[in-house]
Order: sequence, then structure tokens, then C-alpha cells
Amino acid sequence: MKVISICGISDSGKTTTAEHIIKELRRRGYSVGSVKEIHYDQFKMDTEGSNTDRHRKAGSQLVTARGKYETDILFQEKLPVQDILAFYNFDYVVLEGVADARVPMILTAHEAPELDERWSDYVICCAGRIARTLDTYRGRPVFDARTQTEALVDLIELKTYHILPDFDKNCCDACGYGCDGLGPAILKGEAREKDCIVRTRPEVDVKINGQPLEMVPFVQDIIRSAVTGIVGELKGYEEGATIEISIGRK
Amino acid sequence: MKVISICGISDSGKTTTAEHIIKELRRRGYSVGSVKEIHYDQFKMDTEGSNTDRHRKAGSQLVTARGKYETDILFQEKLPVQDILAFYNFDYVVLEGVADARVPMILTAHEAPELDERWSDYVICCAGRIARTLDTYRGRPVFDARTQTEALVDLIELKTYHILPDFDKNCCDACGYGCDGLGPAILKGEAREKDCIVRTRPEVDVKINGQPLEMVPFVQDIIRSAVTGIVGELKGYEEGATIEISIGRK
Repeated sequence: MKVISICGISDSGKTTTAEHIIKELRRRGYSVGSVKEIHYDQFKMDTEGSNTDRHRKAGSQLVTARGKYETDILFQEKLPVQDILAFYNFDYVVLEGVADARVPMILTAHEAPELDERWSDYVICCAGRIARTLDTYRGRPVFDARTQTEALVDLIELKTYHILPDFDKNCCDACGYGCDGLGPAILKGEAREKDCIVRTRPEVDVKINGQPLEMVPFVQDIIRSAVTGIVGELKGYEEGATIEISIGRK
Repeated sequence: MKVISICGISDSGKTTTAEHIIKELRRRGYSVGSVKEIHYDQFKMDTEGSNTDRHRKAGSQLVTARGKYETDILFQEKLPVQDILAFYNFDYVVLEGVADARVPMILTAHEAPELDERWSDYVICCAGRIARTLDTYRGRPVFDARTQTEALVDLIELKTYHILPDFDKNCCDACGYGCDGLGPAILKGEAREKDCIVRTRPEVDVKINGQPLEMVPFVQDIIRSAVTGIVGELKGYEEGATIEISIGRK
């Protein structure tokens, strides 16, 4: 799953840019999900006095509204973007206005100083209202998503990578950049996705209810030692053998 | 996780009953979630023209709205109740108006014929407007949730059981009732939750270099205990989850 983030101040063209990217990615045959951050303190999806609102006020800690054509799961907290993405399984996810995602980013703005304020090593291009006055900025192209959709999405296809893990550098630094640094290093062309050994070379693979679990190397070591310690005593085992275990229904 | 369902026609007292049950369960120290089914064809949680609505119309297949105090994940289909419950991890979940859940049920009604129409082996009691005219029906108590909340929730504590699996009888019939029949058998006092071996004694399957290993039950128990002992500490695990581990190349 590849993730692209669109950031910028209010009314700088974020949603219009998101719409055109989503449409074009779908047109190219990709599955696409999205996350929209709402920077409005009073934001509430549910309506005061609705039945689901009555459930919540009675003390229900997670309320779902299920209609004939939709299912809305209403968490009563701001979930970290990593937790939200755990519900997603698409080729691409487009984030709009989400500040806590360390993924390739498109900055939208009215004017150049806004870009400087939010600039980071994750910026792959600029878009939004600033496209009326600039073609490039700090060596990155500036696109009008309405008229240059294809070029913009070509760049997204080229630059985005499968979402990386989010471990502390003290837990895993096998790539030499830390999870924080690997993304920008990939964007600069210094590193590659497969430098992430947690992602691409899991010697120990654990799934819970079918979902792969990401583990830092030392957790992998614990599981490997425990499992080979027991299974190694069983008939048929020899050093280096592949072991597969499943518990419960597959 | 224990689940109780409240069913009945419109305006028969479902939401009021749900509110009082949720409040009382919380007062007793339980964690509680809920699901409300909306039987109104035109139901839409999102507002026409909102930014999230624009994402959806552009083709985003799963849209999340994240505000400062809430996160709303908006699935564009009616998810099966089992899929919804997979997001839940509470002591109790209260379902309102959800027809496809095979769990202990409270029927609400204005009059007795409505009860007959929806009667099933899952009914543990009745509630709602009918409490004005009846105390019992077909051998089940009838409660006014507003004034008899404690007695109603006592019965829920007594009768509900941890959610059972949902396998076809051809896949598993170890309890002798099938998943469909075990719930009603527990409610009748003929069976117990732990008659479900899938729940209490998940299967353990080990392969070495692709070859299945036959294990006597006590070896299975050793492996199950060791693996769940470790993996149970990892994020994402909950009791009864399926675990798959592979070590080395598959």
C-alpha cells in the first residue's frame, strides 16, 4: 500500500488536488482509499439527538451506524494515522491535511512563504493555487491538479513507496537510516524500499487473524528462539528447517 | 466479548432500552460498545458536498474523517455484523435493530403479535412499550428498561455468553449443535460455552519443511501455550485469535 499526503493551509487547493489524484489513480486501475483531516474544533460527523448520538451519550465507547448502503464506525478519539491505515488495504491511500504521516508529500499553497513554513524532505512537488504563479519551487515541480493531472499522478507513481514501518531507531536501525530517515533517503535516490529488512526480508513471519504483524528484529529473535527451542525437540526437525505453525482456524 | 441484541419494530422502545442497558453496564464497570442499524433507505452519515463526500465521489473506496476528538471510518457498504465486531474489543456490545446477529436477544414491541412475528430461541426477555401491558410473555420476563434497569441488566449478565464462532456445520460440529444451535442450547441450559472446542481448544498445526507433523494432544498443548504466551503479548492479539508463524523460507 502506497501513501501520498497533501498538506497546506485552508483554501489552498488541498481537496481539489486530492479529488483529481483520486480520480486519476482510479482511472489507471488502482484501488484507492483516503483520509481527510478536519481542522475545525467543533467537527462532529454525527447529528445531535440521533439514535447513535443517544448510544454515545449513554456511554457506548464505540458506536457504529449501519445503513443499507454504508457502515460508519465512529471512534471517539483522534486515532494515530498508523492505526487508521491498519483498516485500509488499497493500492494507494491519499491523505489530506494529515500532519502526523511521514510519507511522500504534496504541498499546496497560495504563496511561496507558506511552502517554506511546511517544507520537508518528504515534499515531492507542490500544487494548488500557487500553480498560477510558479512552475517549480526549490527544485520541485508545481502542478495545477485540474489541468496537469496526468503529470502529477505520473510523479506520484514514480516517487511513492510501500508504507514503511514506524519503529524507534533504538528498536531497529537495520537500514542505517531509521524509519524516519529511510523515506527521505528513498526519495533522494540514496536508498531503496528493500533496504528495510523488517518489510522485505522477514525471517520470522507472524500473522494474527490473517494480518501480518510487523516486528522489530529482537522480537523476531524471541519468537524464533522459543519456537525452534520446542519444535527442535520434535521428530523430523533439523537445523535450518522451515517451520510453519498455525493455531486456530486459518 | 459478550453481545446482546435489541430488536423490534419502529418506535417500540429499542433506543430507550439500549440507552438504559448501556448506562447500567457502564455503571457496573464494564466497557461497552454498540451498533445501531438504520432502517431508512436514504440514510447517509456524511453531508452532501463535504470534503469527505468529495473524496468519495472522486472514487475513494474507503474514506476516513479525522477530527480533533473523533475518527469516523466510512465504509461504503453494509458490512456483516461479524466484520463490524472484529473492530470491537469490549466487555459488552449492544446491537440495536441488527437482524443478522445470532446472539441473545431482547424483543421490543407495542403488542404481543409483534413479539410472535420475531420470536426465536435467542429471546431472553421482552421490553419497550409492551411493558405497559405485560409482565411476562411465553415464559420470558417483560421489562420496562426505564424503571427496571437493574433487573434487566442482571438478566443480561446471567444469560449472555462470549461471542461464538460462525462456522458452517460441515466445517465444525464438534459441540454437536453447530454454531447456529449452540447459542440457543446454552440459553436453554442444555450446553455450555466451553462445549465450543474451537473457542476453548484451538487446533495446532505444525509443518517442518512443508511436511505436517502429527502431534499427540499434550504436545499440541505445549506448543499452543508457548506460542500464545509470547504472541499474546504483541499488539493486535486478542483471545481466540488465529496465529500463523513461519520461520525460514516457505
